[in-house]
Amino acid sequence: MSANLPLSVDRLWNDLMAMARIGATPEAGNNRPALSMLDGEARRMLAEWGTRIGLTLSVDRLGNMALRREGTDPARRPVLVGSHLDTQPTGGKFDGPYGVLAGLEILRALHESGTRTAAPIVLVNWTSEEGCRFSPSMIGAAGAMGVLSEAEVLDRRALDDGERYGDALTATGWAGDADPAGLRDAEAYFEAHIEQGPTLEAEGLDIGIVTGGFATERALVTVTGKDSHAGTTPMEMRQDAVLAAAEMIGAGERILYARAPDARMTVCRFLVDPGADGVVPGGARFAFEYRHPEDATLRALLDEADAAFAGIAARRRVAVMREPYWSFPRVVFDATLAARLEAAAQRRGARYKRMLSGAGHDAYHAAARMPAVMLFIPCHGGVSHHPTESISRDWAEIGLRVLADAVIETAGLTQGP
Amino acid sequence: MSANLPLSVDRLWNDLMAMARIGATPEAGNNRPALSMLDGEARRMLAEWGTRIGLTLSVDRLGNMALRREGTDPARRPVLVGSHLDTQPTGGKFDGPYGVLAGLEILRALHESGTRTAAPIVLVNWTSEEGCRFSPSMIGAAGAMGVLSEAEVLDRRALDDGERYGDALTATGWAGDADPAGLRDAEAYFEAHIEQGPTLEAEGLDIGIVTGGFATERALVTVTGKDSHAGTTPMEMRQDAVLAAAEMIGAGERILYARAPDARMTVCRFLVDPGADGVVPGGARFAFEYRHPEDATLRALLDEADAAFAGIAARRRVAVMREPYWSFPRVVFDATLAARLEAAAQRRGARYKRMLSGAGHDAYHAAARMPAVMLFIPCHGGVSHHPTESISRDWAEIGLRVLADAVIETAGLTQGP
Repeated sequence: MSANLPLSVDRLWNDLMAMARIGATPEAGNNRPALSMLDGEARRMLAEWGTRIGLTLSVDRLGNMALRREGTDPARRPVLVGSHLDTQPTGGKFDGPYGVLAGLEILRALHESGTRTAAPIVLVNWTSEEGCRFSPSMIGAAGAMGVLSEAEVLDRRALDDGERYGDALTATGWAGDADPAGLRDAEAYFEAHIEQGPTLEAEGLDIGIVTGGFATERALVTVTGKDSHAGTTPMEMRQDAVLAAAEMIGAGERILYARAPDARMTVCRFLVDPGADGVVPGGARFAFEYRHPEDATLRALLDEADAAFAGIAARRRVAVMREPYWSFPRVVFDATLAARLEAAAQRRGARYKRMLSGAGHDAYHAAARMPAVMLFIPCHGGVSHHPTESISRDWAEIGLRVLADAVIETAGLTQGP
Repeated sequence: MSANLPLSVDRLWNDLMAMARIGATPEAGNNRPALSMLDGEARRMLAEWGTRIGLTLSVDRLGNMALRREGTDPARRPVLVGSHLDTQPTGGKFDGPYGVLAGLEILRALHESGTRTAAPIVLVNWTSEEGCRFSPSMIGAAGAMGVLSEAEVLDRRALDDGERYGDALTATGWAGDADPAGLRDAEAYFEAHIEQGPTLEAEGLDIGIVTGGFATERALVTVTGKDSHAGTTPMEMRQDAVLAAAEMIGAGERILYARAPDARMTVCRFLVDPGADGVVPGGARFAFEYRHPEDATLRALLDEADAAFAGIAARRRVAVMREPYWSFPRVVFDATLAARLEAAAQRRGARYKRMLSGAGHDAYHAAARMPAVMLFIPCHGGVSHHPTESISRDWAEIGLRVLADAVIETAGLTQGP
């Protein structure tokens, strides 16, 4: 399909390394937070690269960038390809930029070879995917796809200093005037991304055809007992919130293995109140998260955990409350697009598997409005959100070629003059 | 024994309330940290009350206050009675001051009635029992009894701002010139204290005859796994430090109930690294403490916990390290003095039991150098280190009378002129 396109992994790699100099850290990672001056600089570089090959830039009111290459058929709506340029504070060079710059390389190869497509192709850089300063993650895509309203996104406050999203965007010079909803009017969305997990490399594969995403619920569990003296209070008179919380965590894990070993469970935070030497803690608060490919199984896991928590709390004479704060249902990507990626992977001789994404991605929101799909390439050791995040050039190349095939097949090559 | 002494619970109560005005908090508690200006003010008030009834004040180089009433027999060494005037930042009115001011009331009654004892009686206010700014707790008694050297205590740095103990002491005007070791040269040490636990009140008792203290070891347990992505990393590829730590805490509790249900276990701190949403935590650190009446049982519990922790760590592919940071062996108080308190309790019609102290007290250090004993009175609900810490006047009175009996019997009444 794109066999004769002059796709260059060297050019893609040079772009990745040039991008990684913006916000480079002493640990060789990247700290390029969304809506920072560095993010603005990264955007200017992308815009320059894109306009140099004739792409038309438009920026919407949420900062989402669209670089458009026209098609030959005025009846066709665009095919989107993209990802994000922002990083975690301790991020690497590839989470986000790989998908954007692979898309750019496809457009550059089309431009150089004078190849026309029937549908327009639009390269998208979504604003603030990582969600480090402005929660939730994927907020730019959420605003464009209508999951959040434009006003909700613009009024969102930074977690650190309370700065308003809209003000931060204006300060970087990237508050555009396009309607964010304009991005909904597209035929398809493709996103290439590093796996951010270890399975592809561990299984000796080059490509993951991502058919959907895990359903996820992350909650804060608050356990309330009673402070007492750690020396003088017999065990049977305690209402120890930490021992109760530890038992709940153990129960959550046992439930997972008994009911759904393919689920995932994470306790990423744990706080003790008062957390003082010699005091039996009356308060504990922990983040409790399950992820599972199926909504119904996720719900069953959570119901069983809630029942177990309640039983533990009653026996230990403490109170417990589980309050979800970050949830999304199962995402199912478009089967036709996934089959197209799979056919391309076969043609290219890639070792691949179909898989689900455990992490959230901009494509999750796009999938609510249009056929969408993702392609994963491996990353070494599954390491991501870390300065040592790395990929091989071979992975970068095969991902680029498979993505190009599927994007161009979807947009349609224009036959003859 | 002291049946005819004019002991006044009203006077004791008034003293307690007057003392509680120094460092009174809006919550009706006390914040009178050791070596603060408020501590200095409390000391001045005690010194004034003592010298007014003819006691001789001496202050040692660690700030320990001794108010001495001479005996009639120059061959006798003094009988000490005391406790501490400093409080926790969220302290109440009775933890510490009860023991000091009950001792003062005994001396006042002796003075008023012109009763002479053979041995001198010395009222002691130990410096910095609570250990809030200068760790460890009971540091003044530790220095006087030689558990820590005088220089070690003076050079100790405040946990908050690094101020030197010696400098803070000088700033309050309470750096004396007496040799701290002088307090070792005594016949006995008595300390009355609130229980700080719930058992006496729960069992309907007025008095606890404290025959010793729990052996204690508090350690920091560090679990080191590996950070990974909470969405993309399958359970079997994780090295999750928090799930391992939760299992270790559960194991520690099961070991306690299987081997020594009379032991106590507390996890008063729990920290997660990095503690970020979406990150499987590679680090966890928790305080892990066992207390038990017997050294050998404490050691056996800890050995079993260490073995369990190692097994859990190996299975979960994390590292674990347990580092004790606050330990003391079992304390056994003097049997003769305990029997003397018990006989007094019987004479006074008190409902009492023999018991062990779970908390540390100045008497622990005194016991290393002389016959020592403690007497507990109940506190409501076992609440201590809290503004609502409270006792009844009846408890205050019976404790005073039993203490007075035993102290005076030990010092010996001088018969006739």
